[in-house]
Amino acid sequence: MVQVNDNFLKLKAGYLFPEIGRRVSAFCEANPDAAVIKLGIGDVTEPLPPAIAEAIHKAVDEMSNRETFRGYGPEQGYDFLRAAIAENDYRSRGCDVADDEIFVSDGSKCDSGNILDIFGTDNVVAITDPVYPVYVDTNVMSGRTGEADEDGRYAGLVYIPVTAENDFTPALPDQKVDLIYLCYPNNPTGTVASKETLKQWVDYAKANDSIILYDAAYEAYITDPEIPHSIYEIEGARDVAIEFRSFSKNAGFTGTRCAFTVVPKNLTGKTSTGESTEIHPIWNRRHCTKFNGVSYPIQRGAEAAYSDAGKAQIGELVSFYLENARLLREGLIAAGITVYGGVNAPYVWLKTPGGLTSWDFFDRLLDRGHLVGTPGSGFGAAGEGYFRLSAFNSRANVEEAVERFAKSLG
Amino acid sequence: MVQVNDNFLKLKAGYLFPEIGRRVSAFCEANPDAAVIKLGIGDVTEPLPPAIAEAIHKAVDEMSNRETFRGYGPEQGYDFLRAAIAENDYRSRGCDVADDEIFVSDGSKCDSGNILDIFGTDNVVAITDPVYPVYVDTNVMSGRTGEADEDGRYAGLVYIPVTAENDFTPALPDQKVDLIYLCYPNNPTGTVASKETLKQWVDYAKANDSIILYDAAYEAYITDPEIPHSIYEIEGARDVAIEFRSFSKNAGFTGTRCAFTVVPKNLTGKTSTGESTEIHPIWNRRHCTKFNGVSYPIQRGAEAAYSDAGKAQIGELVSFYLENARLLREGLIAAGITVYGGVNAPYVWLKTPGGLTSWDFFDRLLDRGHLVGTPGSGFGAAGEGYFRLSAFNSRANVEEAVERFAKSLG
Repeated sequence: MVQVNDNFLKLKAGYLFPEIGRRVSAFCEANPDAAVIKLGIGDVTEPLPPAIAEAIHKAVDEMSNRETFRGYGPEQGYDFLRAAIAENDYRSRGCDVADDEIFVSDGSKCDSGNILDIFGTDNVVAITDPVYPVYVDTNVMSGRTGEADEDGRYAGLVYIPVTAENDFTPALPDQKVDLIYLCYPNNPTGTVASKETLKQWVDYAKANDSIILYDAAYEAYITDPEIPHSIYEIEGARDVAIEFRSFSKNAGFTGTRCAFTVVPKNLTGKTSTGESTEIHPIWNRRHCTKFNGVSYPIQRGAEAAYSDAGKAQIGELVSFYLENARLLREGLIAAGITVYGGVNAPYVWLKTPGGLTSWDFFDRLLDRGHLVGTPGSGFGAAGEGYFRLSAFNSRANVEEAVERFAKSLG
Repeated sequence: MVQVNDNFLKLKAGYLFPEIGRRVSAFCEANPDAAVIKLGIGDVTEPLPPAIAEAIHKAVDEMSNRETFRGYGPEQGYDFLRAAIAENDYRSRGCDVADDEIFVSDGSKCDSGNILDIFGTDNVVAITDPVYPVYVDTNVMSGRTGEADEDGRYAGLVYIPVTAENDFTPALPDQKVDLIYLCYPNNPTGTVASKETLKQWVDYAKANDSIILYDAAYEAYITDPEIPHSIYEIEGARDVAIEFRSFSKNAGFTGTRCAFTVVPKNLTGKTSTGESTEIHPIWNRRHCTKFNGVSYPIQRGAEAAYSDAGKAQIGELVSFYLENARLLREGLIAAGITVYGGVNAPYVWLKTPGGLTSWDFFDRLLDRGHLVGTPGSGFGAAGEGYFRLSAFNSRANVEEAVERFAKSLG
């Protein structure tokens, strides 16, 4: 009989957001008149920037004409987009990234899961805790962990707590780890890493021949000029880091789908017989064999994000969500809540009041305020007692949410 | 040091089509005036059907308006598309397929590689030979094979030859296999499977608790009313088969990207401790955790493939390419070549003349006729001495190619 990959059966009951969806659906069925405001999943709400929509329309017209029609594109992405990304996101900031180190994809979630294909299963993997659940779940699925304990921590993973106690700055592991996931601006805590912190990690990775998987999906939200937007702003990072980026949260592409991963040619790993081998050609082979490139019109849309008009429009979008974050943050502080993040990130991370568990607070907020947030414990054991609110919503909803939030506490 | 997944290093020098690309580029650089006609890769050339382009435009407009904007969609695809697929491609043909057994994706290449995530690595895998290289390469990458021998056959895979000698009908394996890849209409041979042949495979799979991975990406090209379009036309197939389909070759989506996979709820496998477990929830979990859904405007385009106008326009497209296939087939026969396929499929499979190897014939056709085809040996050892021509091109190019082909033989 066919054997399944039963590592999947180690996974906890459901990926976090489906579980939230189930609870919200149940609530809405029981309370059909409740105007629920969702600040749970980090999903954008504002329309596509006009420069981007226009570029997609134009490309669809090209696809409608035999002379300009395009079939299969390069799996790694069209040169026009790879060049725009490398130039605008990296070289213009002094980061040494070549066009052909950019791999265009349909999502950072996909990339951060797929990247594991190219690494051996015996690597020691470190994650911060709380963390984006996909990092953990894809390691579980691929057989890199044992079973989960009561708190949801999987045997074999190295968890590095990031909490108020350590000012949300992860300590370097006290053991040798091979792969390290870092995400800044951080999901879920909304906190950022200074140059010094990132430098320590790059130095650690160089000293230990580790690779950092750096998720910078929220870099557009950085307001502080001292905070690095890319790991490649740190000297030596090209030797030890892969970076994930997305158009989801800056250009509003959560439903439009485009992202990219940077794999520097400097990166090396070793084979099972101990020889050094380059990572770039292996990822390239993976990408060409298991992926067929992003839809051409969507790539043209992403390219337009780097036009003058596109940059201006994206800047407005990001400012809009950041103002939402500020309103949430200040509203919660005024309501007596202890709040983190929300300054260089679209997420506000709060301490649940009265010692409530994260899910108890979720249920209370839903019941009393008809508000949906994300329980901190859904991001890991060290997230217990915390709660995430997303700034992705309309201004009216955010203002209403702040009012309802305060009332729900009573 | 980080260990790479060195199964990648077992892969042969390059995925077939990049290798063709390299040779064609070298030829064109050396012969800048040559008007090369490409009948190699199976890539469509005709524009998007107007009904589809119109639907994409409309959806981009929706994305440009706050009231109708859509962020993250369901990972499995929107209900409107899953329902249209299940109804039009399956239930209307008497196949029992539910909407939620359809998983919309961005490509059959991706799906046929990704499906391996959910199966254990110890399953015995059978493929027909010659075969679409992605089936083999993704098994190699995931550690299901040993090294390749001189002919490119990987240890551990069960190869089932399909050649003129057995009338391109694969024999049932003489050993027990767990996973079986079948592709009909076949890529690369352009041949089809009768109901009786498929029935034998379904019966084999039921008797051996195997699962058939059925690739029906070319079903739209079936002209013979007796030939099944779906494996689910065979009784009992719901218990033993996963089917892959794509909008690439019928609706011209090779650059637009949309496909789907059918995973029936009846399918079961066993865990490593021998218990039976359902496959559908495991694939669903994989899809939700490692994929974020297809771009909303593209899903609307795919939906329009099922509108009355869309169906009519797709019918014209398919007829156009089939007429190309007929011209190729008849032109080659007139030139004294032995030809297979090309009736219910957009591929013509020919025996290389004069006992040439597939790559020698490739080079001769490129040198003498400035024509690009695909060497049969690139699809597997049993493809040696064969050659594939694709019917995806303009009428003028196909007519010109037939003339040049005949001249190259001299």
